[in-house]
Amino acid sequence: MQRAAGGAGRPLVERTEIRVRYAETDQMGVVYHAHFLVWFEVGRVEFLRSRGIAYRDLERRGILLAVRQAECDYLRPARYDDRLILETTLAEVRRTRVRFEYRVLRDGEAEPLATGGVWIVCVGPGFRPMEIPGELHAAFAGEGGP
Amino acid sequence: MQRAAGGAGRPLVERTEIRVRYAETDQMGVVYHAHFLVWFEVGRVEFLRSRGIAYRDLERRGILLAVRQAECDYLRPARYDDRLILETTLAEVRRTRVRFEYRVLRDGEAEPLATGGVWIVCVGPGFRPMEIPGELHAAFAGEGGP
Amino acid sequence: MQRAAGGAGRPLVERTEIRVRYAETDQMGVVYHAHFLVWFEVGRVEFLRSRGIAYRDLERRGILLAVRQAECDYLRPARYDDRLILETTLAEVRRTRVRFEYRVLRDGEAEPLATGGVWIVCVGPGFRPMEIPGELHAAFAGEGGP
Amino acid sequence: MQRAAGGAGRPLVERTEIRVRYAETDQMGVVYHAHFLVWFEVGRVEFLRSRGIAYRDLERRGILLAVRQAECDYLRPARYDDRLILETTLAEVRRTRVRFEYRVLRDGEAEPLATGGVWIVCVGPGFRPMEIPGELHAAFAGEGGP
Repeated sequence: MQRAAGGAGRPLVERTEIRVRYAETDQMGVVYHAHFLVWFEVGRVEFLRSRGIAYRDLERRGILLAVRQAECDYLRPARYDDRLILETTLAEVRRTRVRFEYRVLRDGEAEPLATGGVWIVCVGPGFRPMEIPGELHAAFAGEGGP
Repeated sequence: MQRAAGGAGRPLVERTEIRVRYAETDQMGVVYHAHFLVWFEVGRVEFLRSRGIAYRDLERRGILLAVRQAECDYLRPARYDDRLILETTLAEVRRTRVRFEYRVLRDGEAEPLATGGVWIVCVGPGFRPMEIPGELHAAFAGEGGP
Repeated sequence: MQRAAGGAGRPLVERTEIRVRYAETDQMGVVYHAHFLVWFEVGRVEFLRSRGIAYRDLERRGILLAVRQAECDYLRPARYDDRLILETTLAEVRRTRVRFEYRVLRDGEAEPLATGGVWIVCVGPGFRPMEIPGELHAAFAGEGGP
Repeated sequence: MQRAAGGAGRPLVERTEIRVRYAETDQMGVVYHAHFLVWFEVGRVEFLRSRGIAYRDLERRGILLAVRQAECDYLRPARYDDRLILETTLAEVRRTRVRFEYRVLRDGEAEPLATGGVWIVCVGPGFRPMEIPGELHAAFAGEGGP
């Protein structure tokens, strides 16, 4: 996958291209619904990366971003080999948690195939919620990035 | 997996045992969140089976139950090799759609690890919504089953 | 899933029942091939469990069983909702590694849908191979178990 | 993912970039082994695409490429967020089947993390083996492509 857009001013929306894998289809001939949550995770990792944060490094330092809640609306099926654009938006930042919202579009179409949202909670050892560290706050505020 | 309870009177709650697979964990050392949606699907298939409906046969006759919306609250992590009890409840039946609600418990515990809900829409060819067939209505009303 | 057989004398074959999940199918209408490796892993965990070894506990003590090589022959497709019997056989034990072999059968059929094998290597910190601990050797020799 | 190389003369090796997803890790902190088979499939789809064949279109016309055998050697672990280069080589073409071979490298490294091979059989309705169609033969012979 790759960043499809991005651009000046580091906007709060990140666009990631996803090519649907055969393994992600089911016998209805469409993408099995749970894979959208996997893509959402890819989207927020790329959102962070585009703002200078490698989630991998955060985690090495003991800062985990755990999913606290997730939901997805499936409007039209995604299909094998579709080139999808995943739009990841930072929707809300609280003391220990962050909400990302998502739109999944087939490349070139205006209406999304699916929309969703995920609450991420920042946790330390033992999965105890902790305050979002300053560097993340800076990235979320649009001050981070290379 | 197997039905853990069920019993007389065909209640509107189905209990399914799930043993967490290694493949379902991630490097946080817990179950990756998307797998709960997979389990939810297992739960409603077993719900239907316990009431005399083999989803496999429905689908062969062109009646698909597609996920229209799903959400999950992750309260505490599930872990590798946990014996989980998945409670699947029929929460609402409408003309073309049905809502199932879920609780995921570690065997022997009172507080759920996760709760969730899924709206399923009955679709025919071309994924067009269709009225839920009578046999399914009967099963949902507690009149089905062997 | 559950142990389908087992029995006296702790044989070197373990039978595990697997019900095919919808998520495991692909748009060919059959099980996506990679899932057989997931089932193989379930099979060897149940093999160990039936001989008194909880892999979960091994891992907590820093003894990991990592996959070094895997192969699978796909003879006939497995399908959604099939009740499969997974036969896990301990085929070979060496100083740092063990080979399991597998047959996947549809319940009630004589000819397997797939056969396979996996070399597992015992590793410690940093994924360095280590000698298989005595308790595992005992289990593999048929002296373990409750 | 994207094609990482390609080059003049349409070589029989296709290079595809894979970024490891969080969902692909397990609690050993490395990629769960079954996902390599998923990547292999991505690799051969991109191999075909680079030579002018959209597998999606083949399948629409009733020509399926089913996995008949797969194996993988795991030499060193792949890790979350690794940028991997998947090298897909057409190794052998027979009347009804084709063998692809694979190397998975971490970007910038010379030694592969894993190597593997997959026999694909061309099947028609009812999963019956059929001769590989001419257009595929042409693509495999290096005469295809846009």
